[in-house]
Amino acid sequence: MTKFNQPISGNDLARFSGPNTFMRLPTADSLAGLDVAVLGIPQDVGTSWRSGTRFGPKQIRAESAMIRPYNMATGAAPFDSLQIADIGDLAINTFSLAESLKIIKDSYDGILTHDLIPVAMGGDHSITLPILRAIAGKHGPVALVHVDAHADVNDEMFGERETHGTVFRRAYEEGLIQADKTYQIGIRGSGYAATDFTEAQGWGFQHFPAHELWHRSLAPLGAEIRRDIGDRPVYVTYDIDSLDPAYAPGTGTPEIGGLTTPQALELIHALKGLNIVGCDLVEVSPPYDTSGNTALTAANLLYELLCVLPGVTSR
Amino acid sequence: MTKFNQPISGNDLARFSGPNTFMRLPTADSLAGLDVAVLGIPQDVGTSWRSGTRFGPKQIRAESAMIRPYNMATGAAPFDSLQIADIGDLAINTFSLAESLKIIKDSYDGILTHDLIPVAMGGDHSITLPILRAIAGKHGPVALVHVDAHADVNDEMFGERETHGTVFRRAYEEGLIQADKTYQIGIRGSGYAATDFTEAQGWGFQHFPAHELWHRSLAPLGAEIRRDIGDRPVYVTYDIDSLDPAYAPGTGTPEIGGLTTPQALELIHALKGLNIVGCDLVEVSPPYDTSGNTALTAANLLYELLCVLPGVTSR
Amino acid sequence: MTKFNQPISGNDLARFSGPNTFMRLPTADSLAGLDVAVLGIPQDVGTSWRSGTRFGPKQIRAESAMIRPYNMATGAAPFDSLQIADIGDLAINTFSLAESLKIIKDSYDGILTHDLIPVAMGGDHSITLPILRAIAGKHGPVALVHVDAHADVNDEMFGERETHGTVFRRAYEEGLIQADKTYQIGIRGSGYAATDFTEAQGWGFQHFPAHELWHRSLAPLGAEIRRDIGDRPVYVTYDIDSLDPAYAPGTGTPEIGGLTTPQALELIHALKGLNIVGCDLVEVSPPYDTSGNTALTAANLLYELLCVLPGVTSR
Amino acid sequence: MTKFNQPISGNDLARFSGPNTFMRLPTADSLAGLDVAVLGIPQDVGTSWRSGTRFGPKQIRAESAMIRPYNMATGAAPFDSLQIADIGDLAINTFSLAESLKIIKDSYDGILTHDLIPVAMGGDHSITLPILRAIAGKHGPVALVHVDAHADVNDEMFGERETHGTVFRRAYEEGLIQADKTYQIGIRGSGYAATDFTEAQGWGFQHFPAHELWHRSLAPLGAEIRRDIGDRPVYVTYDIDSLDPAYAPGTGTPEIGGLTTPQALELIHALKGLNIVGCDLVEVSPPYDTSGNTALTAANLLYELLCVLPGVTSR
Amino acid sequence: MTKFNQPISGNDLARFSGPNTFMRLPTADSLAGLDVAVLGIPQDVGTSWRSGTRFGPKQIRAESAMIRPYNMATGAAPFDSLQIADIGDLAINTFSLAESLKIIKDSYDGILTHDLIPVAMGGDHSITLPILRAIAGKHGPVALVHVDAHADVNDEMFGERETHGTVFRRAYEEGLIQADKTYQIGIRGSGYAATDFTEAQGWGFQHFPAHELWHRSLAPLGAEIRRDIGDRPVYVTYDIDSLDPAYAPGTGTPEIGGLTTPQALELIHALKGLNIVGCDLVEVSPPYDTSGNTALTAANLLYELLCVLPGVTSR
Amino acid sequence: MTKFNQPISGNDLARFSGPNTFMRLPTADSLAGLDVAVLGIPQDVGTSWRSGTRFGPKQIRAESAMIRPYNMATGAAPFDSLQIADIGDLAINTFSLAESLKIIKDSYDGILTHDLIPVAMGGDHSITLPILRAIAGKHGPVALVHVDAHADVNDEMFGERETHGTVFRRAYEEGLIQADKTYQIGIRGSGYAATDFTEAQGWGFQHFPAHELWHRSLAPLGAEIRRDIGDRPVYVTYDIDSLDPAYAPGTGTPEIGGLTTPQALELIHALKGLNIVGCDLVEVSPPYDTSGNTALTAANLLYELLCVLPGVTSR
Ligand SMILES: [Mn+2]
Ligand SMILES: [Mn+2]
Ligand SMILES: [Mn+2]
Ligand SMILES: [Mn+2]
Ligand SMILES: [Mn+2]
Ligand SMILES: [Mn+2]
Ligand SMILES: [Mn+2]
Ligand SMILES: [Mn+2]
Ligand SMILES: [Mn+2]
Ligand SMILES: [Mn+2]
Ligand SMILES: [Mn+2]
Ligand SMILES: [Mn+2]
Repeated sequence: MTKFNQPISGNDLARFSGPNTFMRLPTADSLAGLDVAVLGIPQDVGTSWRSGTRFGPKQIRAESAMIRPYNMATGAAPFDSLQIADIGDLAINTFSLAESLKIIKDSYDGILTHDLIPVAMGGDHSITLPILRAIAGKHGPVALVHVDAHADVNDEMFGERETHGTVFRRAYEEGLIQADKTYQIGIRGSGYAATDFTEAQGWGFQHFPAHELWHRSLAPLGAEIRRDIGDRPVYVTYDIDSLDPAYAPGTGTPEIGGLTTPQALELIHALKGLNIVGCDLVEVSPPYDTSGNTALTAANLLYELLCVLPGVTSR
Repeated sequence: MTKFNQPISGNDLARFSGPNTFMRLPTADSLAGLDVAVLGIPQDVGTSWRSGTRFGPKQIRAESAMIRPYNMATGAAPFDSLQIADIGDLAINTFSLAESLKIIKDSYDGILTHDLIPVAMGGDHSITLPILRAIAGKHGPVALVHVDAHADVNDEMFGERETHGTVFRRAYEEGLIQADKTYQIGIRGSGYAATDFTEAQGWGFQHFPAHELWHRSLAPLGAEIRRDIGDRPVYVTYDIDSLDPAYAPGTGTPEIGGLTTPQALELIHALKGLNIVGCDLVEVSPPYDTSGNTALTAANLLYELLCVLPGVTSR
Repeated sequence: MTKFNQPISGNDLARFSGPNTFMRLPTADSLAGLDVAVLGIPQDVGTSWRSGTRFGPKQIRAESAMIRPYNMATGAAPFDSLQIADIGDLAINTFSLAESLKIIKDSYDGILTHDLIPVAMGGDHSITLPILRAIAGKHGPVALVHVDAHADVNDEMFGERETHGTVFRRAYEEGLIQADKTYQIGIRGSGYAATDFTEAQGWGFQHFPAHELWHRSLAPLGAEIRRDIGDRPVYVTYDIDSLDPAYAPGTGTPEIGGLTTPQALELIHALKGLNIVGCDLVEVSPPYDTSGNTALTAANLLYELLCVLPGVTSR
Repeated sequence: MTKFNQPISGNDLARFSGPNTFMRLPTADSLAGLDVAVLGIPQDVGTSWRSGTRFGPKQIRAESAMIRPYNMATGAAPFDSLQIADIGDLAINTFSLAESLKIIKDSYDGILTHDLIPVAMGGDHSITLPILRAIAGKHGPVALVHVDAHADVNDEMFGERETHGTVFRRAYEEGLIQADKTYQIGIRGSGYAATDFTEAQGWGFQHFPAHELWHRSLAPLGAEIRRDIGDRPVYVTYDIDSLDPAYAPGTGTPEIGGLTTPQALELIHALKGLNIVGCDLVEVSPPYDTSGNTALTAANLLYELLCVLPGVTSR
Repeated sequence: MTKFNQPISGNDLARFSGPNTFMRLPTADSLAGLDVAVLGIPQDVGTSWRSGTRFGPKQIRAESAMIRPYNMATGAAPFDSLQIADIGDLAINTFSLAESLKIIKDSYDGILTHDLIPVAMGGDHSITLPILRAIAGKHGPVALVHVDAHADVNDEMFGERETHGTVFRRAYEEGLIQADKTYQIGIRGSGYAATDFTEAQGWGFQHFPAHELWHRSLAPLGAEIRRDIGDRPVYVTYDIDSLDPAYAPGTGTPEIGGLTTPQALELIHALKGLNIVGCDLVEVSPPYDTSGNTALTAANLLYELLCVLPGVTSR
Repeated sequence: MTKFNQPISGNDLARFSGPNTFMRLPTADSLAGLDVAVLGIPQDVGTSWRSGTRFGPKQIRAESAMIRPYNMATGAAPFDSLQIADIGDLAINTFSLAESLKIIKDSYDGILTHDLIPVAMGGDHSITLPILRAIAGKHGPVALVHVDAHADVNDEMFGERETHGTVFRRAYEEGLIQADKTYQIGIRGSGYAATDFTEAQGWGFQHFPAHELWHRSLAPLGAEIRRDIGDRPVYVTYDIDSLDPAYAPGTGTPEIGGLTTPQALELIHALKGLNIVGCDLVEVSPPYDTSGNTALTAANLLYELLCVLPGVTSR
């Protein structure tokens, strides 16, 4: 019998039943002893077009009930060797984006006093800035794998410097990330000027626009990124809108011509072996996909991220 | 500071956040010390038309997060004087209605070894038969307040004697209920013969068809029922399809010309003072109301039922 | 055993199963011997705002599968004494409103060579003009019970004289209806001028605006209309938008402040005894109510209309 | 030919066509000469449960295309005697509730330098606080007709003093409203304590809880309020959640047991004759009612408010 | 003029009109003379996560109305050389999975006394077990082409040995299929252990996991399977969840990273020439795709299966 | 500062705000000086299956608010060098397809007296016939790039010669297009006979069926078409149903196995350099995709078409 937390089996309790935790894992009374803390950050006040991501964590958890513990494609069995729990939601202040970003930073500082990997369910992408501040505070500047339709490197939006569209310019300016080990994958769509992309490239960011990825496997790209990062600490931030709206309709700023879920899986599979120190999955907006399938996709991507965390064994 | 469980306040944790328990109450490690156990019975294999009620408990809990602890209309404060917890879902067997009914009966027998009131979130109405078996096992034949579009007194459906449409004939035959203290409120629609209703009336059932209730307050009817029952133990079973589909579209066998939510509230308010020994709210089918409002209505009716349980104080 | 067509029982074949005919009645090889012909007219090219009524007959039939043969409130048993069948859809020309109106007229002329009552499922309200032309051709000018949010007495819409908004002015001009035995019930909303209503009143039309009917039973009004009509042949045309959008969201030109389904049922119940020579139910637009409940409501109102046809017996 | 702006007629341009202004009115190049300015405030960062009201103005305008200029029930013809235009949306800062409230205040100060009545389409209810600040700056403390499921008199929510749930406490504290001429109509549901309501009553607020209004016309109540206010300047703030969720499902904090649209119309009709100096309709959340009917209801209520503004003539 | 049944043409009756049979084919009075019998098995009590497949046959038929008789890509004209009819639904017992499986077996035994190919519209995948029992009873162990996200080889689910997840272990154990001529295509996702897949491979099952099929044509795989099967009798069972949820959102246990519809078509096209003795299409759950497009996809795949049946000629 | 119309920036006015014009461009008082006129043709009376395209222009405009002016993938900046405005909707007659087609022809004749490129948002595909009549009247027979699931070369539908399925046969017969420079891309599905396609090929039409395009880039095909057309005037007509229903579910006659959005973008990108004299995007049916994503896709494709118009410069 394992000493690690296990998801409730569908043979013990029907899948539409039981606690609404990620994969029906136990909640944790304390962070002590955890290898991985899954948590929700139910925020949408950082969005610029459709809102609704405040319900992201709740629906991702609901849909995650269908996932079983063993990864058939890769053999990974994350619950064999890691202690993983769902530690609930951060108590963000839904009326103030600025306050919420502070709360997230402070909460992560507390979480990171423990030797664990935080895995966040957003929430809009603005949550990643305070997370990176806390991550860099512990690990120093990290490599960054950023999968997204958008580069999120605006200087400001409507005069605000901290929104879901400015995260990675701030992270660069504040030295939270290693610019030349920052990979932006899936970016596409329209902008205001060529400098929207070229400026970040000038900082060292490596861009993999969606149109260069169409029709092909992302396994080679993933392998290349893995080699390039080496053993640096790395943070993975996954914006669900990196996927094509056909695959993830329930999001706030969808852009056509995006990645497919096979590509998303290839990319994540390739990250196995990296020193991942944290990750997040953001921008799921449940009101825009009442089938639940966007949240189901997000839950699966989070599960796949668990499967490539350091220390995960295979069978 | 109260010694009783309290729902998480919206000022402590944003309402779209936190555990997916009923009203964000604590879960219970043990039934000992509980006055009321709220539980889910996520079943739909007893339905005859649209399915989907298996997701009822999950969505009722999700929508219940908006309810606050104090009842503005009646002054009831159920969490001031009762220890209430969400004890999770029964582990029904979704592939076998017959097995599930046994599981429910056995589970209730266990629950009722404690001196508490079970409040069930369905699930289809077939769950009420094993519940009544357990209830009668403890309390003897009970008075029954049955709010429903349907009398649910078929002898069999497709040859089966225990489905969501045969509950109260079985309960009558088995002596689980006091026939002349059985009140069926809101029944309407089409049937196979006049005997669909008259036969049950012959057993003593008191019928209040919807069309006799249109355009008027149900407070007088509720008061009359309360007086008629006196201090007998009473079970309240609330089928959400008693409401008009305008008020509760997300249900499996909707019938037009039903009750309004004001009428539902008037009726429940009037039950204050009865010796309620258990209750349930059934037939919420989330796939048929993606707005969540049917589940929200169900959550509110369950809250109102909590407010009229014996021992609830007012402020 | 009855000699009349019966709906398939839910105990013989699960309700979500079987032919997609009205109430799962048999189709008819021939009109000979029928007392009532239920038919569909799947048209939406006569609509002025939202379209979609072309799918009305299909979805009304689908939802009608839940209705059983006996009317619990009134005792009516239409399948005990009338031969009723679903004769399918008229082969309208969906690209030409004008052609379709001719096809409807010609089809009805054929149908009415038989001594039966046609019961039409629309389709938008423009279908009623050619129906009335055929009805008047057989029965002479008829009394008209017209339940609707709109008077449908425009002279023209966008230059067209035959649309869903001009039906009853044309019917009046052509002498198809008895103007002083025309009852428009539930009309409301906004218009272009007071003459929108007063002109038709000048022809003799009797108006019962929705705001005069709020909060009260329509049984007295129904009884008054029944007495006023006497034994004249009467046509009943039921626009689903007469109901409040809360009760019938799936329609093309919804108007707030409408009737409730209890009122609709009271009104129809009161028509028992009239010499109804035909009726229709129009303006159900399935894309605007994916729950199916608007079509369910329409199916029930059609069933209630069957229950008050001449010759229907009670048990 | 009239000198006043007129909505585009459905006979000139199909209703699903044309500019997305309120009722397809012209936009205004300047505020000069306007009697009424209809405007949008597309905000949802003040909400506590479901978001989405940022799309309220856009969808209210879309659905308003079905409304014609003349009020059949009351004879009001607002476009006969008032110059009304849609002046577009305020440029709120969607990332900062505090900033947005300042922008609204400043914008209203500018608008109110003109002698016109501002009619706002929300947006969440937090917009009404800065509006009242501007209104009181011009007119002094105003009488307030507040139709809502909620009293919105919290002291703070999650530590914030200016959200959609604190508006009228702030308005009272700041002397923006005449407390004894403040009418809160339709309030209901659950709260934290009896003082949620009684404290405001202590300030002079007059409460008309929903449960005291069930089953009856609101015309008498409206008349009483009109008499009580007399010729004071009055602001009308209409929260769509005052309606029952059956009538207005698309809102962020629905409460069961609410008003009906007939009641809403009766109430507004009764306000004719008051010195209304401004009004708003708030809390329509389009993602939660994809049929558009909640927005249609809101558009109609706004139209009815236009119909009772000072100076509106009848025909 | 052909002697074979033909779908009603869209030029004879508008597509949104007419009987709700598959492709608007005639129903059959008798099975005699049929080459192919299309039938519905409206069941969902064998599902483990989302239900709703009971409405699968009804919606597949509704959406099939858009399909025309000639296959543009392949030239197949199934109605030129085969007598095909829709024989309606099996009268399953919706309250008992076990009973229903018996009914299906018995019904198929009856159907197979005729020399025809049964083509079933599910319903959940549990229907395929009794079908295979009947098929093997007539044809002996058959080759099996099984397209699915899941291998459906669990030993039991919640203690039950016959559910939608245990079908092909039972079929193997009972010798209904030729294990080394069993092809499972598209399987993926999470499981409990590597043995979930390897055990079946040990029996001889040939696995083609989805991740080995991404980004490439399935024509070669289909050709290889066709050659490998040769002239053995073969049954084709098509679980709609083999498709990616982007292509088929309306299903009960969706798994990301699935097949595309081009791949599905390539696969089916390649099966031409096989001795197909029966087939089914299962797991369409209409409540989870109100657009109807999942059912449309299912209808098209069924049509494509008709096009590769033995005896179908081309033009 | 530019002299050309610019879309409102998301930093000046929140994207969910502002005028409902295409990309929030200005409307035009006059056509004089325009290089490009974007317009809506809100029609659905030419559809044969699902309707609803009458709301296409309104929703395409709504979703276009998210597009920014600069094309990141191609560098195109259409608003740097062209004067583009949204000139509103044509005043079609929704009750008469024949009349509407005349109105469209006459309107286009008027528009084309100016030296501009008309870009139409449909509406169903029948609008393209009168457009081509006007275009050919000005430019002579044009090359035609026709992206569609359907060839739209029926001779008649239900006896009508001008519907959304007969457009290009009429265009051929009337000499509006250069038959051997007509490219039909993405066609697929079922038909009535091989001649459905071969006849048009006999006229010279070049067919690129979807199944020949699966799994590969359309850039080479686009380049080939561009070379083949040379400097001829060319019209581009884009039926959204060319896309797979996974990518564009909200359309009236979806066909599985279609193009992806990457393919659509590759194709349009390749058209840069052609002498495009007009284009349209048709068949978006909003009721069948309440997420808005189909309209978002359409808006993006229209933007991409703007980006390849003659005279567009890059940065
Ligand atoms: Mn992002
Ligand atoms: Mn993004
Ligand atoms: Mn019941
Ligand atoms: Mn019921
Ligand atoms: Mn009408
Ligand atoms: Mn009407
Ligand atoms: Mn409010
Ligand atoms: Mn409110
Ligand atoms: Mn399966
Ligand atoms: Mn499967
Ligand atoms: Mn087309
Ligand atoms: Mn097409």
